[in-house]
Amino acid sequence: MVTESFKKNLKEKYGVSFHNEQLLENAFTHSSYANENPGTTNYEKLEFLGDAVLELAVSDYLYRHFPKLHEGELTRLRSNVVRTEGFSKFAIECGFPDQINLGKGEEKSGARSRKTLLEDVFEAFNGALFLDSGMPAVQHFLHLTVYPMIAEGDFDDSRDYKTELQERLQVNGPVDIKYEVIEQDETKPMFTVQLFVNGSAKTTGKGRNKKTAEQQAASQELKNIK
Amino acid sequence: MVTESFKKNLKEKYGVSFHNEQLLENAFTHSSYANENPGTTNYEKLEFLGDAVLELAVSDYLYRHFPKLHEGELTRLRSNVVRTEGFSKFAIECGFPDQINLGKGEEKSGARSRKTLLEDVFEAFNGALFLDSGMPAVQHFLHLTVYPMIAEGDFDDSRDYKTELQERLQVNGPVDIKYEVIEQDETKPMFTVQLFVNGSAKTTGKGRNKKTAEQQAASQELKNIK
Repeated sequence: MVTESFKKNLKEKYGVSFHNEQLLENAFTHSSYANENPGTTNYEKLEFLGDAVLELAVSDYLYRHFPKLHEGELTRLRSNVVRTEGFSKFAIECGFPDQINLGKGEEKSGARSRKTLLEDVFEAFNGALFLDSGMPAVQHFLHLTVYPMIAEGDFDDSRDYKTELQERLQVNGPVDIKYEVIEQDETKPMFTVQLFVNGSAKTTGKGRNKKTAEQQAASQELKNIK
Repeated sequence: MVTESFKKNLKEKYGVSFHNEQLLENAFTHSSYANENPGTTNYEKLEFLGDAVLELAVSDYLYRHFPKLHEGELTRLRSNVVRTEGFSKFAIECGFPDQINLGKGEEKSGARSRKTLLEDVFEAFNGALFLDSGMPAVQHFLHLTVYPMIAEGDFDDSRDYKTELQERLQVNGPVDIKYEVIEQDETKPMFTVQLFVNGSAKTTGKGRNKKTAEQQAASQELKNIK
């Protein structure tokens, strides 16, 4: 059963509250639990819907926020986002694992932390939210979870600013390039790194992980030296 | 250029009118035309968006209208609908081919009647409609085009009522089964067929093509003899 404190957190942190809480419950009900508990409904049909909800929400976001990208680049970026591998991370961040209704066998086999299951639940949750409150509510939720990581370039495999910077700086021979974490948020995943070139401090970058923060610092320095 | 009479038809037949007519124009502009006419925008990004718009619109429709189907059946049905082969038919029905802006070479090579191009334009049109007027407008348009064919079972490859009926009737030996078209609408694709078993008239069925009408007649007769 979805706990009251989880619902409170959903509301306070993400502005999400369900009119029909049964949908929320279904989104967290694995088939193994539904099989053992007649009368309960598993999340599979919500997952079917949520898959398409995320596809459109992400497409719409990309279309509006990356006006300079061509259709091929948009398609690649969308496919990176919705191939769902990353969704398990958001499911964990949102505290979903503890809420899942699992059958006894699946519980024993560690399904609660299984990536694919968490991804399915993330899709089902968005399907339920779409049915309950419509697309604007989904977009609002994604603006607080998935979209910031798209904006930070987490899903963009096309540009590697660190390599680009290294190539630019080392045209005339070796240069010492270092990235150091200078700040790390204790309440949420947020890193600040400082770029050093031959020992002198250059740009800083921020991101949800070190890799993203480093890419941002490199991207900024590339702009400075152009 | 999209003609006035086409826009009038869109409005009268499908309730579609664009606030931003540039979007409508872009939806009908092939890259070959855009290349020859600087300043024009091709439909590729609208197609990127329209693909996801159709995926969600169809998923939502299936979820709501087929409550008895399992997730696997819903997924198969959705994939039959949105694999887009069928979309060219709707593009023709809606009078899209004449509106497409094509480059000279593509025009000569017959691109205007190329199925894949018509499918792309159908997606782009729905992407443009979504941007211009939102999901309800898309749903309304699809209710007058794609959804009736889903409801008629055109995309459902799982049940073949004619075969099922034949097998049921011929359990004790050969039976003469015939389907005859008894009515055909002259203004739109709509057929009525009559089922005859050993020469006596049984059920009738209606559909946009003979196959669908026959399936409906067979399905009805199966219910009668159960």
